[in-house]
Amino acid sequence: MLPESIQKTIEEFNKLPGIGSKSAQRLVFYLLRKRDEDVERFGEIIQNLKKGIHYCKQCANLCTNDVCAICQNDARNQEVICVVEDIMDLIAIENTGEYKGLYHVLHGVISPIEGVGPDDLKITELMERLKAGTVHEIIVALNSSMEGEATLSYLMRYIKPLQIKVTRIARGIPVGGDIEYADSQTVRRALEGRMEY
Amino acid sequence: MLPESIQKTIEEFNKLPGIGSKSAQRLVFYLLRKRDEDVERFGEIIQNLKKGIHYCKQCANLCTNDVCAICQNDARNQEVICVVEDIMDLIAIENTGEYKGLYHVLHGVISPIEGVGPDDLKITELMERLKAGTVHEIIVALNSSMEGEATLSYLMRYIKPLQIKVTRIARGIPVGGDIEYADSQTVRRALEGRMEY
Repeated sequence: MLPESIQKTIEEFNKLPGIGSKSAQRLVFYLLRKRDEDVERFGEIIQNLKKGIHYCKQCANLCTNDVCAICQNDARNQEVICVVEDIMDLIAIENTGEYKGLYHVLHGVISPIEGVGPDDLKITELMERLKAGTVHEIIVALNSSMEGEATLSYLMRYIKPLQIKVTRIARGIPVGGDIEYADSQTVRRALEGRMEY
Repeated sequence: MLPESIQKTIEEFNKLPGIGSKSAQRLVFYLLRKRDEDVERFGEIIQNLKKGIHYCKQCANLCTNDVCAICQNDARNQEVICVVEDIMDLIAIENTGEYKGLYHVLHGVISPIEGVGPDDLKITELMERLKAGTVHEIIVALNSSMEGEATLSYLMRYIKPLQIKVTRIARGIPVGGDIEYADSQTVRRALEGRMEY
């Protein structure tokens, strides 16, 4: 019923995560009301999205050079590495403005169900960085899901012999959150991680 | 912190209705994990979205020819026109498979607040079709918002002298909906529109 170019664009939007067929339709009709040049520019920007983008040789962050801006920054503490699952977690930590060390992006977590094994992740690269001997602390900032825990215990097998300090980010009641509504796992972790006042 | 092409794509997605900055980020990182050719194809499809698309000369539906497939279809009842606000409403009605007449897409409703007057809508085109004399019924399928009602009464000024039958789609309790949770306007309309059992 709809012209093919519209139908095809709706299908493409529908493939994106969290966008159902109604939302895809709404987005495409929104674009159809836009000026031709704006729509073309949007398409062009997507076409060029991945051009010249690759992983940082050191930490697997996304960058346009060999090494990313964070790794290149001498002002950052080269002795601390924060291990994250993906770039969005890295951004969340950078956005605090608190962390001044380096990162290592695993690009996933071990998940037998989804067929993701240790070799699919940037684990070898992490071990090489650790063996260089400059790192004194690893901050593990993985989600505390089953997959996150499995990945951490896998990593520990290799990190333990190196005798590097390993810390984990705190679990507890979110700021502004209500203790009475928190799940018991979170409350348990909040108690375990209590700090002196 | 992110490469420019990524930042730019996130900003573009963020401009779309209902897509906040977090969702935009998630969508772009999803695309970054896709194969290069898939991302390029997606961009290309968007670039070509509006190419060759224009309004049907008769009903203002979207099409690639002068006249849309619905208007061209001789099997459809040429004596009934369903007036809708936009293409998405047309699609919703087509999807029922019940309606066999023609359409007329106004491409909006009269809304002084948003600066939309009668001249911004496809009203002149509708009146020309009606004056041709083949139409015996107009089904008004506009939303019953203030703007929809204002548009309908504006249309009626011109339709009344032509003495064409005008009907409106029924308002009432949605199928599967609960009477006790329906707002009183809806219940009132459901009562008014009651049909013999």
